[in-house]
Amino acid sequence: MTNQRQKVAVIGSGAIGSYYGGRLAEAGHDVHFLMRRDYHVVHDGGLRVISTDGDFTLTTPQVALSSKEIGPVDWVICALKSTSIKDAQELLRPCIGANTRILALMNGLGLEERFAGWFGPERIFGGMAFTCINRGEPGYIHHLKYGPVTLAHFQNNPVELDIAAALWEQSKVTITTSPSLLRSRWEKLCWNIPFSGLCVAAGGVTTDRIVGDRDLRKTAHTLMEEVIAAGNADLAAKSEQVRIDGLSVIKRMFALTDTMGVYRPSTMIDFIEGRVMEIEAMFGEPLRRAGSLGVNTPQLALLTAILRSLNAQR
Amino acid sequence: MTNQRQKVAVIGSGAIGSYYGGRLAEAGHDVHFLMRRDYHVVHDGGLRVISTDGDFTLTTPQVALSSKEIGPVDWVICALKSTSIKDAQELLRPCIGANTRILALMNGLGLEERFAGWFGPERIFGGMAFTCINRGEPGYIHHLKYGPVTLAHFQNNPVELDIAAALWEQSKVTITTSPSLLRSRWEKLCWNIPFSGLCVAAGGVTTDRIVGDRDLRKTAHTLMEEVIAAGNADLAAKSEQVRIDGLSVIKRMFALTDTMGVYRPSTMIDFIEGRVMEIEAMFGEPLRRAGSLGVNTPQLALLTAILRSLNAQR
Repeated sequence: MTNQRQKVAVIGSGAIGSYYGGRLAEAGHDVHFLMRRDYHVVHDGGLRVISTDGDFTLTTPQVALSSKEIGPVDWVICALKSTSIKDAQELLRPCIGANTRILALMNGLGLEERFAGWFGPERIFGGMAFTCINRGEPGYIHHLKYGPVTLAHFQNNPVELDIAAALWEQSKVTITTSPSLLRSRWEKLCWNIPFSGLCVAAGGVTTDRIVGDRDLRKTAHTLMEEVIAAGNADLAAKSEQVRIDGLSVIKRMFALTDTMGVYRPSTMIDFIEGRVMEIEAMFGEPLRRAGSLGVNTPQLALLTAILRSLNAQR
Repeated sequence: MTNQRQKVAVIGSGAIGSYYGGRLAEAGHDVHFLMRRDYHVVHDGGLRVISTDGDFTLTTPQVALSSKEIGPVDWVICALKSTSIKDAQELLRPCIGANTRILALMNGLGLEERFAGWFGPERIFGGMAFTCINRGEPGYIHHLKYGPVTLAHFQNNPVELDIAAALWEQSKVTITTSPSLLRSRWEKLCWNIPFSGLCVAAGGVTTDRIVGDRDLRKTAHTLMEEVIAAGNADLAAKSEQVRIDGLSVIKRMFALTDTMGVYRPSTMIDFIEGRVMEIEAMFGEPLRRAGSLGVNTPQLALLTAILRSLNAQR
């Protein structure tokens, strides 16, 4: 695959979609942003990104109010919140042509399965963004920290994975490819479940409060062990050849979070700002899989029950 | 022990202290209430109790601003919040004579040990009130539901236990005596830990939300099993002859809570009203004991970590 100019549709142009789509536009791709809330502001005033990896502005970004306006593309980047997954099929459909590929740049487990069911498995990719990006005032995106994206193919096809990586080649985004989407999804959950979960359940606190508190740190560790056990059982059940290296992941996740400072996970921001949180994809689905695989995850069960209850009060 | 008129000091005249002390005054005992916040209102206007077991008013209750005013008594009923346990020694001291007995009508584990250390073990009793009593406007107590008290002696001396029961004989309070204070304290925790704990952690909800939600109900069940395992290990370690009958307790606690309706545990009321919650005596001490006894209580650990964090934000 040569590094040709690709037509890209960003479906769900929140902070993540706008930032990564913006980086692709900056790199010369033909990027179209599906927007609702900020359509007029961005259409008239552009998209401004304040970033630790270099600020940039798209002065005349291509924004659309419907997917039909965009039409078929080479790449769909779906950056919807996982709580909107039920709307994804309809939103994506007009952008899907015979050779369209779809990258789910979202949080949680089981999302690519949904896309594969709708559009066929061979064109589906998952993206794990490790970053802190928030919306500012309309038209402004604040990229505060980190930014690398791990890409994986739904069928773990290395040729397809190279094609996905090529899309980002001229961009400022650091790409890592993963030989196993399922393992990478579970490894991401090794961070999200303990840290996003506890940041919410402990009352809407930042990650430094979790790693800095003896009880909460120990609990994060136990939760991570539960996630690793469930993840490895899931990998084994699906006959994948790879496993999560538990000790190494735990060490890495804590080292990372220890140096993260006062960090607000997106789920915690949703919580304190009164928005619905991404609980089912991030907690419910892992818990369901653990349950059906016979893996005992008592802390994940308790945490999920609490988060679901908090979400029901949104 | 004859049913003589006893001099009683109620230390901590919140809802529980005022209600049960009031019932003793109604029964003819010489009851003195140590009050702070409501002293003037109750001194001038009396204490009014609206109760499912019959309203009553003490028109000229004996209220005091200091324990010294009360002096030595036959019985001290300590109904402080367990968060004030550090103040109890000083508050009780002026009321303790050679033959004074002390009833800790409080929530949590390890409180009687403190009283025993200060004043000697032979005079210490624990009271487990199963009831819903709230303060109303100053001078008003609302007794909404239930009311029985289980009494136990710190050294499980049956003669002492009879003396304690005799105090309440002419009162409207239903008394049960327990052959094991430690077992009764743990059995009370079998309700308090899952239900008070989850009512707070799930966002400040009522007990019907816990028993009516599949996830939270299951979690309450698991938590109860952990408390029972820890309690029985504690009873064994202290060479008590009795054990918690787990299946029976679980059945009883759920049956009770299923018929409880929209009930707000006192800890949940503290939470939603922004007050410090009784976390250490009710969650921290059971967790510490479980840990030192080698009993695995992952859900209790997670719940306690969350509650401590919420409490730290009060």
